Amino acid sequence: MLSVMVGLGERQYSIEIGSDLLSSSKSYLPFVANRAALIITDDNVAPLYLSQVDSALEQHGCQVFHYVLNAGEQQKHLDSIAAIYQQALSLKLDRQCLFVALGGGVVGDMTGFAAATYLRGVPFIQIPTTLLSQVDSSVGGKTGVNHTLGKNMIGAFYQPKQVIIDIETLQTLPAREYAAGLAEVIKYGLIADLNFLQWLMVNTKAIIEMDDGVLMKIIERSCEIKAEVVAADEREKGIRAHLNFGHTFCHAIENILGYGNWLHGEAVAVGMLMAMNLSVSLGQVPQSAVDALADWLEDVGLPTKLPEQVATSDMIQLMAGDKKVEFGVLRLITLKSLGEAEIRSNISEDLIAKAIDTCR
Amino acid sequence: MLSVMVGLGERQYSIEIGSDLLSSSKSYLPFVANRAALIITDDNVAPLYLSQVDSALEQHGCQVFHYVLNAGEQQKHLDSIAAIYQQALSLKLDRQCLFVALGGGVVGDMTGFAAATYLRGVPFIQIPTTLLSQVDSSVGGKTGVNHTLGKNMIGAFYQPKQVIIDIETLQTLPAREYAAGLAEVIKYGLIADLNFLQWLMVNTKAIIEMDDGVLMKIIERSCEIKAEVVAADEREKGIRAHLNFGHTFCHAIENILGYGNWLHGEAVAVGMLMAMNLSVSLGQVPQSAVDALADWLEDVGLPTKLPEQVATSDMIQLMAGDKKVEFGVLRLITLKSLGEAEIRSNISEDLIAKAIDTCR
Repeated sequence: MLSVMVGLGERQYSIEIGSDLLSSSKSYLPFVANRAALIITDDNVAPLYLSQVDSALEQHGCQVFHYVLNAGEQQKHLDSIAAIYQQALSLKLDRQCLFVALGGGVVGDMTGFAAATYLRGVPFIQIPTTLLSQVDSSVGGKTGVNHTLGKNMIGAFYQPKQVIIDIETLQTLPAREYAAGLAEVIKYGLIADLNFLQWLMVNTKAIIEMDDGVLMKIIERSCEIKAEVVAADEREKGIRAHLNFGHTFCHAIENILGYGNWLHGEAVAVGMLMAMNLSVSLGQVPQSAVDALADWLEDVGLPTKLPEQVATSDMIQLMAGDKKVEFGVLRLITLKSLGEAEIRSNISEDLIAKAIDTCR
Repeated sequence: MLSVMVGLGERQYSIEIGSDLLSSSKSYLPFVANRAALIITDDNVAPLYLSQVDSALEQHGCQVFHYVLNAGEQQKHLDSIAAIYQQALSLKLDRQCLFVALGGGVVGDMTGFAAATYLRGVPFIQIPTTLLSQVDSSVGGKTGVNHTLGKNMIGAFYQPKQVIIDIETLQTLPAREYAAGLAEVIKYGLIADLNFLQWLMVNTKAIIEMDDGVLMKIIERSCEIKAEVVAADEREKGIRAHLNFGHTFCHAIENILGYGNWLHGEAVAVGMLMAMNLSVSLGQVPQSAVDALADWLEDVGLPTKLPEQVATSDMIQLMAGDKKVEFGVLRLITLKSLGEAEIRSNISEDLIAKAIDTCR
């Protein structure tokens, strides 16, 4: 078992990474003992892993309750949170209860937000079961839901007490979702670690084959990088924005296609290529780096082209409404060099349009 | 103008107390400059004070927008928050915007919660216009809404950037609401400051007549005590619970009568008498102190008797579901002595029933 600490002072917590962690009571911090636990999961994950987590928590003396959401990004809205409140209040759960997020990013984001706002905040732990949530959304405390007017517009910064990552859960993950997670993995290489980027590039085959050792390394290094960035800038006043590399493009794509058509990681893949195109236009990275990235994304099964129905002008309009806008100025993350990101706010619309159109 | 600091490290903020503060741009911190400001208020307060705040913020170069709620505690639910999100998103307000709460506790609690959760948190300032919100809810960062299954069950701890208290707004406050605020004022004396308690007892007439100097002192000392407690225990792990003196009884009363029938401060008045009765039963304070409190509450126009339709057994059942319950144990705030509160968790139901019934 590997352990990564997220250093946030009194809010610090550990990420445990290993095999067969879910069913072992030893994976869980002693602080869970004897609490009423509300496990929030979805109807894909519940039949696979809910009983394992149940019994582990029962070994800690917890009284365990469940709330099973319908699976899917389209459930990620305020009404689902209201339903969780209703369940928790009906069970008379008090401030000493524990919320447990068991599932992918949607379950984690919603459980975290419900935990942040139920009785003005109750403790919660994250048990992410998809690669995407293991390397990204379960770490760092971003919680929330979508709104019809935009993705993740409602939410809170709220840190879990612990993250438990069991790589065995990846065995039941659809291939397309595994690939989507890899988009965030290679992002960490691009923005923060040239060595890791190169390692990912030369280990494509083992990555596709889901070799255990390779999975552990991928998840550990991704969590380390995310933990470092989050510890330095919890509330995204500065460097944390680097994690949004490709994401401003990505959110516009998701918005136009409708949430749930493309997976988030698929839109991230194309969004990163656009951000890379921009970095090439700015003279920061060579064209060969973009080509190598596109090849790698294709090899692992990710899209590299924008669907035809997505108009460049619509994307630009949506990007102007993104959360990263400050005082009306769009800030984009580009690469200063391979393995190093920076924030740019002076990029012309023409250059952005060109970066988008290069992915057609 | 008086100023009280709430010492919360990087989240510290000042409370400005004075006359004619709303319309003067000098009352507002320079940080508001040039932001898009969403003033959230209600239809009672808007005709009285909205234009004053508007022009002060416009002098700071703010682009000012409004959201006017229907007045009343019955509006304090998640749907109203969703309507605020909708308005803010329609206006494309970004993370650099400013929310402004202009009104009583309901407006402040809802604006604070909306600010805490819009784009994962935007800055907000509190401009409380009722005595109750000036001495209590605007200070300390408790934000949230009610749920059909309980009061303030949904919310967040989220601090404002500044609190601006203009005592002129009390001139338009209904007498009943002024009295309701006085319940929280005398609470500070009871739990934390015997001198202040005695000062309140001997200045009843000037308090009823709303003498300017007396108002300033009442508000300043109340805010000081609350600020000290909040600075010591922001998230209510310990001493902050003292502020709930009388409130566990109060919440049960409000729940049974239906929100909005009694004012919060009215239920606090009777709740405090019950908590005082309990303190007498425990041998901590003399009966004469309860009698003096009851007289004072009556003098300023507050109720001291429980309405007949409120059954003791119903109250006890509701109290067992209060947020202050931990691991199934009800904790109550009692007085250790006059001017000093403590948390007790070993009080029998019989004693609680007796404390309730003494207010019949």
